[in-house]
Amino acid sequence: MEGTMKEPQVHGFLFFAVPPGQRTSHTAHRVEAALQRASSVPGVVGLFTYSTVGLRWDCDLCFWIAAHEVPSYQRAAAHLLATDLRPAWALWGTVRSSPYTGRSGTSVRMSAPRKRYLVVYPFTKTHDWYQLPHEERRRMMLEHARVGHDFEDIEQLLLYTTGLSDWEFVVGYETDDLERFSDLVTAMRSTAARPYTLRDTPILTARYGSLQEVLGDVFPGT
Amino acid sequence: MEGTMKEPQVHGFLFFAVPPGQRTSHTAHRVEAALQRASSVPGVVGLFTYSTVGLRWDCDLCFWIAAHEVPSYQRAAAHLLATDLRPAWALWGTVRSSPYTGRSGTSVRMSAPRKRYLVVYPFTKTHDWYQLPHEERRRMMLEHARVGHDFEDIEQLLLYTTGLSDWEFVVGYETDDLERFSDLVTAMRSTAARPYTLRDTPILTARYGSLQEVLGDVFPGT
Amino acid sequence: MEGTMKEPQVHGFLFFAVPPGQRTSHTAHRVEAALQRASSVPGVVGLFTYSTVGLRWDCDLCFWIAAHEVPSYQRAAAHLLATDLRPAWALWGTVRSSPYTGRSGTSVRMSAPRKRYLVVYPFTKTHDWYQLPHEERRRMMLEHARVGHDFEDIEQLLLYTTGLSDWEFVVGYETDDLERFSDLVTAMRSTAARPYTLRDTPILTARYGSLQEVLGDVFPGT
Amino acid sequence: MEGTMKEPQVHGFLFFAVPPGQRTSHTAHRVEAALQRASSVPGVVGLFTYSTVGLRWDCDLCFWIAAHEVPSYQRAAAHLLATDLRPAWALWGTVRSSPYTGRSGTSVRMSAPRKRYLVVYPFTKTHDWYQLPHEERRRMMLEHARVGHDFEDIEQLLLYTTGLSDWEFVVGYETDDLERFSDLVTAMRSTAARPYTLRDTPILTARYGSLQEVLGDVFPGT
Amino acid sequence: MEGTMKEPQVHGFLFFAVPPGQRTSHTAHRVEAALQRASSVPGVVGLFTYSTVGLRWDCDLCFWIAAHEVPSYQRAAAHLLATDLRPAWALWGTVRSSPYTGRSGTSVRMSAPRKRYLVVYPFTKTHDWYQLPHEERRRMMLEHARVGHDFEDIEQLLLYTTGLSDWEFVVGYETDDLERFSDLVTAMRSTAARPYTLRDTPILTARYGSLQEVLGDVFPGT
Repeated sequence: MEGTMKEPQVHGFLFFAVPPGQRTSHTAHRVEAALQRASSVPGVVGLFTYSTVGLRWDCDLCFWIAAHEVPSYQRAAAHLLATDLRPAWALWGTVRSSPYTGRSGTSVRMSAPRKRYLVVYPFTKTHDWYQLPHEERRRMMLEHARVGHDFEDIEQLLLYTTGLSDWEFVVGYETDDLERFSDLVTAMRSTAARPYTLRDTPILTARYGSLQEVLGDVFPGT
Repeated sequence: MEGTMKEPQVHGFLFFAVPPGQRTSHTAHRVEAALQRASSVPGVVGLFTYSTVGLRWDCDLCFWIAAHEVPSYQRAAAHLLATDLRPAWALWGTVRSSPYTGRSGTSVRMSAPRKRYLVVYPFTKTHDWYQLPHEERRRMMLEHARVGHDFEDIEQLLLYTTGLSDWEFVVGYETDDLERFSDLVTAMRSTAARPYTLRDTPILTARYGSLQEVLGDVFPGT
Repeated sequence: MEGTMKEPQVHGFLFFAVPPGQRTSHTAHRVEAALQRASSVPGVVGLFTYSTVGLRWDCDLCFWIAAHEVPSYQRAAAHLLATDLRPAWALWGTVRSSPYTGRSGTSVRMSAPRKRYLVVYPFTKTHDWYQLPHEERRRMMLEHARVGHDFEDIEQLLLYTTGLSDWEFVVGYETDDLERFSDLVTAMRSTAARPYTLRDTPILTARYGSLQEVLGDVFPGT
Repeated sequence: MEGTMKEPQVHGFLFFAVPPGQRTSHTAHRVEAALQRASSVPGVVGLFTYSTVGLRWDCDLCFWIAAHEVPSYQRAAAHLLATDLRPAWALWGTVRSSPYTGRSGTSVRMSAPRKRYLVVYPFTKTHDWYQLPHEERRRMMLEHARVGHDFEDIEQLLLYTTGLSDWEFVVGYETDDLERFSDLVTAMRSTAARPYTLRDTPILTARYGSLQEVLGDVFPGT
Repeated sequence: MEGTMKEPQVHGFLFFAVPPGQRTSHTAHRVEAALQRASSVPGVVGLFTYSTVGLRWDCDLCFWIAAHEVPSYQRAAAHLLATDLRPAWALWGTVRSSPYTGRSGTSVRMSAPRKRYLVVYPFTKTHDWYQLPHEERRRMMLEHARVGHDFEDIEQLLLYTTGLSDWEFVVGYETDDLERFSDLVTAMRSTAARPYTLRDTPILTARYGSLQEVLGDVFPGT
């Protein structure tokens, strides 16, 4: 993993559960070694670790992989899978320009320090949404964006994955304050665009930490 | 776990199943040790044990963790996960002021003795709810609250988790009488607000006991 | 388990699958011993065994526990869970008076000989049902009951569990003739109340037998 | 299993997956022995074997059990379950006379040679269907039957299981030509009755073979 | 596997996960041997390997089997299943002529080099679709096809499986550029036919590679 001028276009969030009987220092060491291998895959620009302990019942930790291309992303993911942690969720997509605003919808920067929390969820629009005139959809997306502008302390990553995953988009948010992020989502629920959301679960909240901090959380006895 | 003047803002309910072949005194001892470690995490204000044996097919016991902050909650949860019990559900959120009434919706107090039963469930409102004018929603929530006032022997814990979990709210009820709680829920089903509930399962009923009582329930031969 | 004058108010149906590699005489003996312990729990009034072999893919046998109180029911369930059979379903509730008829809806008597088959399923009413005037719901429930009166050879157990389980009611039927019970259900599908049923699965059919007969069914080589 | 004059009234289709690590000749021999025991259960009239390899991800083989009564069916099923294959689906019901036509809807005969393929699926009608006048439903069922008459090379088995299973009916079709059966289903999708189908999955396609052929398919190295 | 003049009519996509503890060179060798056996089954025309690592949480690799007949397809699948990889999805069907256009909807050719990516998903039409006049459906399918004509660099495989699988169709797309394929799908979402799609998940994206490349991806340490 090395510094780069260009922001990565491919992001993936891999959530894993520790299988029964494997909350051991042996597993912790395997995760540590795998992360080193994954970080050194050419084309991988960022690799961050998170704890989901107590916030989800189906996983314990999360890795955020940022890469220039899908094959690099996959190679990094392969190293993490080789730990025999049990994969719970894989959410991925690419940064693209919005057909409504021409902008990417992504404010996250690799070089910035990570915030305390990450929230990731996928979403899909209804059939009705796509039958609306483009201009009407654009108007609603601009209202939607305006609500977000009141929350400038929250960074957004908007990933396109229509036709490539079980959902159309994956969104990631970085925040230092979970209640403040919750306020943002609550405000969004009353926008005109909201009823055109078909599905937006699972919603996965994770706490940022260095690898050692996350391993200390997930493997408390080691 | 130490006494505190301030009521905790973060509550989580962790439900676990005992994996096949592990209903042994060895597992019971591991749970006992984990609970001690979890209770002594700084910032953890309450930690209570419940049996769900026979009331659910997907879990056997429940821990209620009350903490001042999310990281404390997570550290306590990590100790419980380290027992290798199989996590079934994790329901959590924070105590906040209602946008409709200005009050928290929470009457539960840590210092009160626990009641015989705890019922926990998550819920999510429909899209239509959030498109209604604020005043109309407020009116319905006040009617909803009035129904609850007839059941003053039942304590409520209302947790906000919109955008942080697969559901928007988690509610916990303490009661000494399950049928009386059932009457409360039945009365609520005829309020005007009810059709705006999209989903309110799983509904998890648990019986309170000291750790020794709960272990005696879950591991009857030990 | 001892005879009692008072009919029990708490009933639960526990369905279990035999885990892979455990269809052995050792497991059969554990089930036998567990049933004895469960039967002797104070407050347990009835405990009956059923085979679901071939009638469900997710379970093999069923225990019907009738008790005076929830804690007794739970203690009996704990003994059955200690066998390491894999729990598939737990359906429970309490006998209560109907708000529409004032009667309990339960004709099953503990002292009667069990019929050849038991059918158990949970159900939940729609939001629309609870928004109807009480008198209109009452009228529909009376029509519903009239259809049932033509099937007097079928005994019914109606359990209330609103707000306590993922569904609002659990119903059990005892019949000697499965096709006749199917006729009853088919007749009910054309009543006015039927469209107000939101969900009524899983539907679990089980064949009654003594413990030895059921073990002979489930563990045919032992 | 012996020849009989009377056609069986109870039919069940049991689908099994071979668990990981068990695609061995030892398992194949256990299946062979179990099938012999199941075939010799009194009251069992037919027992046929099918491969679902590659046609489903959740199972590998299917057994069709035809019996005079439910207890015989269950005893045969118990022998197959004793192999420790993992049960994936159990679909069963009884042959009955249609309330619309007075006929059974079943053209399958035990004495006929089995066709190359079997397709089995359950289905449930909507609430709206049962609120229609009987005469209107009858008219639609007759149209539905007329479409089927153009496919006389396909045999049908219609099983009633309303109130006894998670679905109302189970249907089995025997065909030598899968594309021709697909044409039949496609034609049915445009009948007036079709929108009254609430659910008709899983749809399970299986290829007929002698036990040796099916074992050769499922355990290719043995 | 040998060259053939005739294009195969049966295609299946088998997705597998590597079970916990099996990301070893031993498993890699078993997969290699199984693929050789599967390729040499008479009637198998093509057998291609793909990595889904990091793109799905429920599988790691995919095999595309093209065969002249269902039994050949099944025999090849049996060899792959014998590796004890855990089957995640099996999507299959046959190439047929469209009732609307008379053409097959399939542009994929076995002799062409495989493109970098494969996207596979099943889909089912709504009840409403089949109640529309044939001519209206035809008109919508022609509009749908016109949108596809702008993406001539993407090859399509359209498989019919109505009444044979849990869905009606399986579609496979070959592309060198995932974002371009995503543009195609997005454009399709605004066609008049789109609201008649009931379900189109799972959507499975896989990266092409030689067996050695794919094994290197899935078993990175071997």
